Amino acid sequence: MSISCPDGTERKPDRLEAFSDAVLAIAITLPVVELHAPKPEAGDLASAYAELAPEYATYGLSVVLIGLYWAHSHFSGKLLQKTDHVYNLLSVGFLAAVSITPFPARPLFEHLSGDAQSTTAALVYLGVAAAPATWWFLRWLYATARKLPDPRLSDAYLRRLTVKYGLTAGAYWTAFMLAFWSSTSGLIAAGVVTLSYVVPPAKPEFKAGEQRQDD
Amino acid sequence: MSISCPDGTERKPDRLEAFSDAVLAIAITLPVVELHAPKPEAGDLASAYAELAPEYATYGLSVVLIGLYWAHSHFSGKLLQKTDHVYNLLSVGFLAAVSITPFPARPLFEHLSGDAQSTTAALVYLGVAAAPATWWFLRWLYATARKLPDPRLSDAYLRRLTVKYGLTAGAYWTAFMLAFWSSTSGLIAAGVVTLSYVVPPAKPEFKAGEQRQDD
Amino acid sequence: MSISCPDGTERKPDRLEAFSDAVLAIAITLPVVELHAPKPEAGDLASAYAELAPEYATYGLSVVLIGLYWAHSHFSGKLLQKTDHVYNLLSVGFLAAVSITPFPARPLFEHLSGDAQSTTAALVYLGVAAAPATWWFLRWLYATARKLPDPRLSDAYLRRLTVKYGLTAGAYWTAFMLAFWSSTSGLIAAGVVTLSYVVPPAKPEFKAGEQRQDD
Amino acid sequence: MSISCPDGTERKPDRLEAFSDAVLAIAITLPVVELHAPKPEAGDLASAYAELAPEYATYGLSVVLIGLYWAHSHFSGKLLQKTDHVYNLLSVGFLAAVSITPFPARPLFEHLSGDAQSTTAALVYLGVAAAPATWWFLRWLYATARKLPDPRLSDAYLRRLTVKYGLTAGAYWTAFMLAFWSSTSGLIAAGVVTLSYVVPPAKPEFKAGEQRQDD
Repeated sequence: MSISCPDGTERKPDRLEAFSDAVLAIAITLPVVELHAPKPEAGDLASAYAELAPEYATYGLSVVLIGLYWAHSHFSGKLLQKTDHVYNLLSVGFLAAVSITPFPARPLFEHLSGDAQSTTAALVYLGVAAAPATWWFLRWLYATARKLPDPRLSDAYLRRLTVKYGLTAGAYWTAFMLAFWSSTSGLIAAGVVTLSYVVPPAKPEFKAGEQRQDD
Repeated sequence: MSISCPDGTERKPDRLEAFSDAVLAIAITLPVVELHAPKPEAGDLASAYAELAPEYATYGLSVVLIGLYWAHSHFSGKLLQKTDHVYNLLSVGFLAAVSITPFPARPLFEHLSGDAQSTTAALVYLGVAAAPATWWFLRWLYATARKLPDPRLSDAYLRRLTVKYGLTAGAYWTAFMLAFWSSTSGLIAAGVVTLSYVVPPAKPEFKAGEQRQDD
Repeated sequence: MSISCPDGTERKPDRLEAFSDAVLAIAITLPVVELHAPKPEAGDLASAYAELAPEYATYGLSVVLIGLYWAHSHFSGKLLQKTDHVYNLLSVGFLAAVSITPFPARPLFEHLSGDAQSTTAALVYLGVAAAPATWWFLRWLYATARKLPDPRLSDAYLRRLTVKYGLTAGAYWTAFMLAFWSSTSGLIAAGVVTLSYVVPPAKPEFKAGEQRQDD
Repeated sequence: MSISCPDGTERKPDRLEAFSDAVLAIAITLPVVELHAPKPEAGDLASAYAELAPEYATYGLSVVLIGLYWAHSHFSGKLLQKTDHVYNLLSVGFLAAVSITPFPARPLFEHLSGDAQSTTAALVYLGVAAAPATWWFLRWLYATARKLPDPRLSDAYLRRLTVKYGLTAGAYWTAFMLAFWSSTSGLIAAGVVTLSYVVPPAKPEFKAGEQRQDD
């Protein structure tokens, strides 16, 4: 494939996208391994299942967080014209940071009731959750500085994305800071930021004179 | 790739299909991790292997259920012309629901003999198994409402699929209800619904005047 | 993609290949999870590492077996013109059978010294190892009966492959039978069959008058 | 797809790349399974998290090592025109060797303080880390001997890569040897070699008269 295309030695984003999709697919599915159904010796099955509530919440939260990152990277992948070595390495950093977000989720739910450990549990979770947003922002800054996006996209559109990603990373760190004072407030703030990504991303805008690609 | 095509900024279903295939591939393979061969200190190897029967049944059931979902999503993927953000998020929900179906399978087999826990084990399994069918139906309703399928497919064909998917989800929930009264009946009902997907899906039908794509 | 091709509603083998590659990639990597490095409390690290020898052998054997299946399915994928629903389901059976082959490998190596359990360990391993070869053969029989291979391939070439796959499945079951009498002989026989796949497969041969595709 | 292209029966590198990417994606994500967040009964959560430091270091090291291999195989994939059976098998060997590198990483960090086991821990790690570099070099030697790279690449460029890959493998084994004398020196040497791959690879150079593919 790389040989027959006229521009074959410059890598299109498709292979990075495939790798990225594979890592996210594994990261979103792997928390299932942590779900251990009750053994026969656990006694009453209904209450044994009920006791696993923090595990279900962990799985659900991981699916929401990683699923939204996947959906957004699915969108943003089409904005790039090409990728380079440093962009690939920044992507590895982003992917490793996303993959680890399920790790501190169970303690978060186990200490949600507000015991002596809840602040620690919330701080660790929020710090870990802020990392992928930060990598994402850094990667985007690099991509725009190196002119990796489609050159036909309007500067205003790219700038709005830069502001959006910067604000997202900033908001996660603000939520982290907030949790020193009140872990509940910090978690609510981070939740609002995360769920804002359920809203479909803004349609790409092209420079005047450039052919519109859709509709 | 997305840049050189005239319609590059509208995403074809291929990337969602790749992600979906990857998640299903992991979900179908991951139950192998739960299979732990007997250690030397387990004594007689033959009986130690025999005692693992519920584990084998769990693996087999997961392969059948997830394998049939994969085969059917392989078919349905070709019916779509495009995907959008909400469709992607509904797909994440569907995939997360499928991935978790192996979790309650082992207790199901361990309590199949009809002890005090069998109704609980069957209810939990049937509830978890009804979830992906429900997501699938919701996703399809959304897809048809948003005109995501190939516009050349006949309305009657699309409507028959809507009915089929709705009936499937309904049948799983009926099996769940049935299990309150008799867990065996509920499980048999769900099994019949699942295995009905072994039958190849109906060939796509096109609107009059549209070029037939196959044969 | 499926829309723009003239034959888009008939599925080319590429999506099945992608799913198959993903399952094999997971199956070949998953045994790493079973490798647990010694903990500090295990005492002398060198001897703790040495005691894990059966685990290394398990990993190595799984890599060889699954790697050869991948390499051969990489080759055979290009012989098909299309796939259908039943072929997909047979592929799921094949993939599930391959994925489970690492499961009985550790007991095999732990009882290799010829203790009371070695025959059991060898029989279980050989039976599990014969399954994917059998699925492969059944899938191939179905494919040729349904004319799924490239119609330009010569009948003699297809027939030679049918014989090869049938002999392979038969040889694995013979090795299994042999192990009732002598587990060492059975294992050597199965090893020879497996390693025969290191030899590159025969080049596709085309019908007279058909354009040669390579060289 | 393979049928419709004129050269469809000769396999382009894309399917090997897809398999390779999938294995590396799993290998880079799987160490997350080894990260077990503290349970409620572990007492003080902050110190329980702090005690897991060797686990975090293991995860980080695996991400760096496997991530750099992925980024480099992303680059080198585009240099090949085709792959063959033996190249595929050598790739399986390489991938299996990479996938296992996280295994000896935790003991490395647990014994970093220089106790009686540190030399053993460093030697095992460095030996395991030298393996994929060796497989990579052997695979490259095979590829150039069999003329698998793009024929338009200049001989000088290919020769420089051969020297680079040979030196890398040699440097890892030197680091291994060095660790018999001083484990710290060996680890630093291996670290320097690994991190040298953060530098982007040299741009492909073409034979005189061949059309430049990029810029």
